[in-house]
Amino acid sequence: MAVYTEVFPEELAEFLVGYDLGELVACKGIAEGVENSNFVVETTRGQFILTLYEKRTAREDLPYFLNLMEHLAKHGVRCPVPVRDREGRTLRELSGRPAALVSFLAGYSFRRPKVEHCGQLGRALAGMHLASATFPMSRTNALSFDGWVSLYAEIMKSYGERVDELAPGLSVEIERELEFLKSAWPSGLPTSVIHADLFPDNVFFLDGKLSGLIDFYFACNDAQAYDLAICLNAWCFEPDHAFNVTKGRALLREYRAARPLEAREVELLPLLARGAALRFLLTRLYDWYNTDSNALVKPKNPLEYRRKLKFHQTARSASDYGL
Amino acid sequence: MAVYTEVFPEELAEFLVGYDLGELVACKGIAEGVENSNFVVETTRGQFILTLYEKRTAREDLPYFLNLMEHLAKHGVRCPVPVRDREGRTLRELSGRPAALVSFLAGYSFRRPKVEHCGQLGRALAGMHLASATFPMSRTNALSFDGWVSLYAEIMKSYGERVDELAPGLSVEIERELEFLKSAWPSGLPTSVIHADLFPDNVFFLDGKLSGLIDFYFACNDAQAYDLAICLNAWCFEPDHAFNVTKGRALLREYRAARPLEAREVELLPLLARGAALRFLLTRLYDWYNTDSNALVKPKNPLEYRRKLKFHQTARSASDYGL
Repeated sequence: MAVYTEVFPEELAEFLVGYDLGELVACKGIAEGVENSNFVVETTRGQFILTLYEKRTAREDLPYFLNLMEHLAKHGVRCPVPVRDREGRTLRELSGRPAALVSFLAGYSFRRPKVEHCGQLGRALAGMHLASATFPMSRTNALSFDGWVSLYAEIMKSYGERVDELAPGLSVEIERELEFLKSAWPSGLPTSVIHADLFPDNVFFLDGKLSGLIDFYFACNDAQAYDLAICLNAWCFEPDHAFNVTKGRALLREYRAARPLEAREVELLPLLARGAALRFLLTRLYDWYNTDSNALVKPKNPLEYRRKLKFHQTARSASDYGL
Repeated sequence: MAVYTEVFPEELAEFLVGYDLGELVACKGIAEGVENSNFVVETTRGQFILTLYEKRTAREDLPYFLNLMEHLAKHGVRCPVPVRDREGRTLRELSGRPAALVSFLAGYSFRRPKVEHCGQLGRALAGMHLASATFPMSRTNALSFDGWVSLYAEIMKSYGERVDELAPGLSVEIERELEFLKSAWPSGLPTSVIHADLFPDNVFFLDGKLSGLIDFYFACNDAQAYDLAICLNAWCFEPDHAFNVTKGRALLREYRAARPLEAREVELLPLLARGAALRFLLTRLYDWYNTDSNALVKPKNPLEYRRKLKFHQTARSASDYGL
């Protein structure tokens, strides 16, 4: 949630001349998107979101993300649609950064989603997975098992002593989990494009109905059930850290109604949820020590995901998630 | 420029029930306003700015600021207008903070205003001074001479050694200036409500025409020519730190066309500009050491105002500013 790069409105007005979007009316830097700088841009033709891509988003990945949003929108997924300039380009440059304009999505995210929101999320997630089947591009998940190993090594190298200060024994717990997942982490599950970061703040609702998915900048090709496991982690725990099985059931039921799960996906759900929890534990740990002091919001507490991980470690089967 | 307090959209939706503004459509935290948390709120009836007042804005001052904006808007000044709820209140509470909704002002600020913008600013500033003549409330300028003395004492107490690290000799320069202004700082000049922080980012333009003034949270009752001196500092220096006398001339000419300056105001302009430069040197120095790490934008360099102060110290008369 940040504005890392400033935009001179007079330069933005000039930039807009390249589009068929009328004149600049207003521009405000917004607290949306952790990795990049985002602005609400109002022109005489409507509202748009301008994103300036910061260093953490690799420039070579941008066509994948932008084409994906365009593809998904064409195939019925409600998401921001990249705007093409007069020469047909979606990727431009502004303030020395790669930049893109996308459509503005009405709606707002719930900080505390309810059961019915979890159900709608499940339906939308399956819809996104299905719609991406014909998307021709591919991107490796940089934050799958190998990525966790490297990230953990980097954390220990730079901040090793501070990890156990955060919670005694944390480093040993992470090492044991990595050791366990090393042999257990599955392959061969049904894959497609996955969102990989579909937290409540990336899902908008309007009048109680899901109005769209945003922030596709972690999207990649990976196991669909892993995306589902990320959502179970992100949507179905209560503030007191208890897993809400009613929410899990709603999420899984609606997902399966649109895309049935294979037996192996069901069986591996607790394991996938462990991997997902470890992934966010590690990235939050990294961000805990690395957050740019210009960022808008405090880094999220990594320990939330340590608790979730413990829940998944004791789960026996998918029925513990409501299936 | 910040969002210090988060708003749960579901709580905002509930909050809006108290207004005749329809349903919540979207809400985004924005990078506007240094002291408080600001959000663009879109409802089915239009766009608004929601402000949550943080600790640096004294709660007892809020009626002054909100009533002032309402008064100015009624008297032809383009500025945000506080929205009254169903019970007629402009000041409410949200997320544990005093909160107000104001109208959304179309337009955007220039980072590098041109001569014609300075002229329009002068006209608008005089308009604001004149319109405030019938405003019944009053607020002391907490950042006038006595405030500078206390602020400097606080800076030296907490960060004394670091001041001269920023620029060798800086503390002595500030002390000499305070000593000089102690006897020279004028009283008895024409007063009214002044904006006191009318930097380019607080002035919006649309289609090249000034569309409004924002951020009245430093407004107070003080010398009108001092407000003009603040604008000379904020608008008429070039990035290479040179004073642009053409911009100064445009600003002063248009101001005087709407409100003629008294002889004493003209004579004291260089002195008022010194005081204004010192005020921003001191507050930037304070912010340099005190910026909340959650803030969106890096603190501004205090030394910009040290250079401006040096310019004013050598100015001989108002003609050095284009008069």
